[in-house]
Amino acid sequence: MINHLPEPMKRLAERLAELPSIGPRQAIRLAFYLVNEGPDTIHGLASDLENLKRIKICERCFFIHQNSGTLCSICNDPKRNHGLIALVEKETDLISIENTRRFNGRYLILDTISKTGILDEAQKLKIQNLKSFIQKNLGGQAEEILLAFNPTSHGDFHASLITKELGPLTKKISRLGRGLPTGGEIEFADDETLGAALGRRD
Amino acid sequence: MINHLPEPMKRLAERLAELPSIGPRQAIRLAFYLVNEGPDTIHGLASDLENLKRIKICERCFFIHQNSGTLCSICNDPKRNHGLIALVEKETDLISIENTRRFNGRYLILDTISKTGILDEAQKLKIQNLKSFIQKNLGGQAEEILLAFNPTSHGDFHASLITKELGPLTKKISRLGRGLPTGGEIEFADDETLGAALGRRD
Repeated sequence: MINHLPEPMKRLAERLAELPSIGPRQAIRLAFYLVNEGPDTIHGLASDLENLKRIKICERCFFIHQNSGTLCSICNDPKRNHGLIALVEKETDLISIENTRRFNGRYLILDTISKTGILDEAQKLKIQNLKSFIQKNLGGQAEEILLAFNPTSHGDFHASLITKELGPLTKKISRLGRGLPTGGEIEFADDETLGAALGRRD
Repeated sequence: MINHLPEPMKRLAERLAELPSIGPRQAIRLAFYLVNEGPDTIHGLASDLENLKRIKICERCFFIHQNSGTLCSICNDPKRNHGLIALVEKETDLISIENTRRFNGRYLILDTISKTGILDEAQKLKIQNLKSFIQKNLGGQAEEILLAFNPTSHGDFHASLITKELGPLTKKISRLGRGLPTGGEIEFADDETLGAALGRRD
């Protein structure tokens, strides 16, 4: 279908289809939607995009920032405990944890880990940089490394692999607690969740 | 979550979430994806968007075009039968029909019709313009109007409403034939489809 579109629509649809979770049909529908909305909407979106270029990425934890230096506001904050490091897969996981106001450490955003558990080159480099940080800034031992991966079998698998890698460099390695979600009902909890809630009762 | 993002990300995420079939979480993920991809990808998408402003919309059938005048290539084509008019909901429906090379008429893109069957102001105006076209260019009677809506109960309902509206202005009013889809299996056809195939056997 895409080949019958005029060149500017075709190029935009192809570009949109490269974005994660946007398929080729949705890309075509979006292109038609924008043409029908008219030049103001199109220009508004284009200029909001151009403004995104002002966002920088922290060279230590890889979260976004707009500071003048190379570090984000969390990595720059002297009140944070830099010996307590949470490894997360996604930026949105970091934001969810920040929203709880219950974590006072720093982060490392690893990006989604492949289901095979094999880290890609960028992820290996991030782990390597974390090791150097622990050697240089923490005297060779972190206080605690929290592997804040999803509570799934993939998350467990990734955590076990990274524990091997980082275990010798930290006093404690932890994961997020499991149990009943607040507001949930016992009747509808699955066996795994209820079992975890029993095993970790407090 | 969106409130904790820097302003340029927040604005882009809000803008993306206004697009059809993109939810607020997907919008945030897309914004993060683009920041991580870097300025080249961001600028490429922004400039492809700006190029979209060169696309025009045909004032007769509302399909896209890049011609110097106000009409699209189909409405401009003297070899087309302008007395045969297909009403479609979406541009992509038009493209699908064009791809068959089995239709030699012109189109009218109505935009998605509300489930209530009530036409909005823009749709009423399009029908009104079609009536004027039939009066002025076709001497008061179209040869055939094909109501190319989806073969669903909503599509049937909309077709019956529009038949009332346009019936007096055309010699024939038709819908797309129903039956077994090519490549399908009788065993797996639903009763409605198989019934239609029996009733319309040829």
